[in-house]
Amino acid sequence: LSLLVVGTVAFDAIETPFGKTDKITGGAANYICWAASNFSNDISLIAVVGDDFPQSEIAELRNRGVSTDGLQIKEGEKSFFWSGKYHMNMNSRDTLVTELNVLADFDPIIPAHQKNPEFVMLGNLTPSVQLRVLEQLESKPKLVAMDTMNFWIGDENFKKDLDVVISQTDILIINDEEARMLADHHSLVKAARQIMEQGPKYLVIKKGEHGALLFHENHVFFAPALPLEEVFDPTGAGDTFAGGFMGYLAKTGDISFNNMKRAIIYGSAMASFCVEKFGNQRLKELSINDIDQRIQEFVNLVQFDIELTQ
Amino acid sequence: LSLLVVGTVAFDAIETPFGKTDKITGGAANYICWAASNFSNDISLIAVVGDDFPQSEIAELRNRGVSTDGLQIKEGEKSFFWSGKYHMNMNSRDTLVTELNVLADFDPIIPAHQKNPEFVMLGNLTPSVQLRVLEQLESKPKLVAMDTMNFWIGDENFKKDLDVVISQTDILIINDEEARMLADHHSLVKAARQIMEQGPKYLVIKKGEHGALLFHENHVFFAPALPLEEVFDPTGAGDTFAGGFMGYLAKTGDISFNNMKRAIIYGSAMASFCVEKFGNQRLKELSINDIDQRIQEFVNLVQFDIELTQ
Repeated sequence: LSLLVVGTVAFDAIETPFGKTDKITGGAANYICWAASNFSNDISLIAVVGDDFPQSEIAELRNRGVSTDGLQIKEGEKSFFWSGKYHMNMNSRDTLVTELNVLADFDPIIPAHQKNPEFVMLGNLTPSVQLRVLEQLESKPKLVAMDTMNFWIGDENFKKDLDVVISQTDILIINDEEARMLADHHSLVKAARQIMEQGPKYLVIKKGEHGALLFHENHVFFAPALPLEEVFDPTGAGDTFAGGFMGYLAKTGDISFNNMKRAIIYGSAMASFCVEKFGNQRLKELSINDIDQRIQEFVNLVQFDIELTQ
Repeated sequence: LSLLVVGTVAFDAIETPFGKTDKITGGAANYICWAASNFSNDISLIAVVGDDFPQSEIAELRNRGVSTDGLQIKEGEKSFFWSGKYHMNMNSRDTLVTELNVLADFDPIIPAHQKNPEFVMLGNLTPSVQLRVLEQLESKPKLVAMDTMNFWIGDENFKKDLDVVISQTDILIINDEEARMLADHHSLVKAARQIMEQGPKYLVIKKGEHGALLFHENHVFFAPALPLEEVFDPTGAGDTFAGGFMGYLAKTGDISFNNMKRAIIYGSAMASFCVEKFGNQRLKELSINDIDQRIQEFVNLVQFDIELTQ
């Protein structure tokens, strides 16, 4: 089934304890598309870049079944650029540079033939831009997912729009810090209940190296992160998780809670690949075999059989 | 099968964001015995208390199948006392008071009829005291497990004894901070490999609210912590985990990796009860039904079915 993705496509410069990159391609929607395209070849990318963005990267996405009809290329302008440096423990990072460039006045335009997607993934962006995407849809999608970040949650200028997008979202996919901030509760269980009262029927809370939780009504499912020898570069792991999750749902067309569990495991598997190399490099190398093997590792990691006493 | 437990039996005074206790009974061996006695009624407690320790508490342990023949009661002396205050997030705490009292010169003596246990749990104690217990055994147990803490790992006066105990241990049960400190590696996977080279064939790394990892050779198993609305008091949760784990192994007598997975789930379930009330209060109320229901929650929390593509 079709998946529409909106978000940033950008340049990143990343420094981790393992090394340092020049400008490499990144952006939330880029990672989402790379991950989702392992499962679906009916993906529409809605984004904006400058004419400095490599044509070859756009061609690679097209080769994977990602339509770039909705990707605006601004002549004479520069792509969004982010630069950051990770601390030793990889759980925190400092932003060194943020240059909005083309993102400053991004007005997403969905091509006419893409206005009826079955699945929608709103990558982290200005809430009003996420809203603009929803407004252009001609029919109600089967599932709308969204990501956001502390910057929008904590600023009252954006919070109003953010609340509207959240109320129109079926599944919110955020990290633990964002969930706590959004609900103003330290307990993730309490935060989850409060967030779901704002509209989303489902909530995914990403906990990085500590896995991810899926909430729905009174149900909760937990997927671990794979214990890795080293996390080489965490950039994009959350977006890759969301891309794997939504790609798998779009492939199967099944939004039951049981299938969402599977989708979370696929998302976790994709994220575990992402962090093994800089940027989206590792995602470009994956075969179906690699993914199957990784899924088997997740099965081995958590499956057990217990016969209850009674 | 028989389980021999050594560790502290003590008084605690605890302050959490939810409230404050007077002196209540605690101690690693106390929590271990309360948890393990849900599964086994052939437990020997080796510990020391002063004559201020309530006889009724000792009687309660006996009622649950815990032999206190090896519990020394020092006339005219006071029991070990610890007082601590938890921070808002419950992940860190300040120690307010530590009074060693009877613990200062504790010389564990195993009664003659308890010198051939099949399972041994060395609760966190001075490494030389843990060694004294192993020295008194007349036959090699099926499984020796031990806990320790940062205090012993970081002090070179204790480190030598600690290394000897670790080398004689089959399964080390410590938290993530201790594992990183012991191996001087941030990566838990690398730390685990290095620790297992020091002797233990198995390693459990407890991550508190983030669950627990079991390592053995190239295998790894992950058990989540149950997402709780509130952690009321984390005191003793790690010991309760170890007690549930060893109690289940002693009950089943099966130390295969698959059964250890089950034991970790039982340990996690017991720990999830422990944190619901102050001290070991919640552990005293549990029925088999409560435990079965909790195990079912763990099954629901992590089980999924995936058919691989190939």
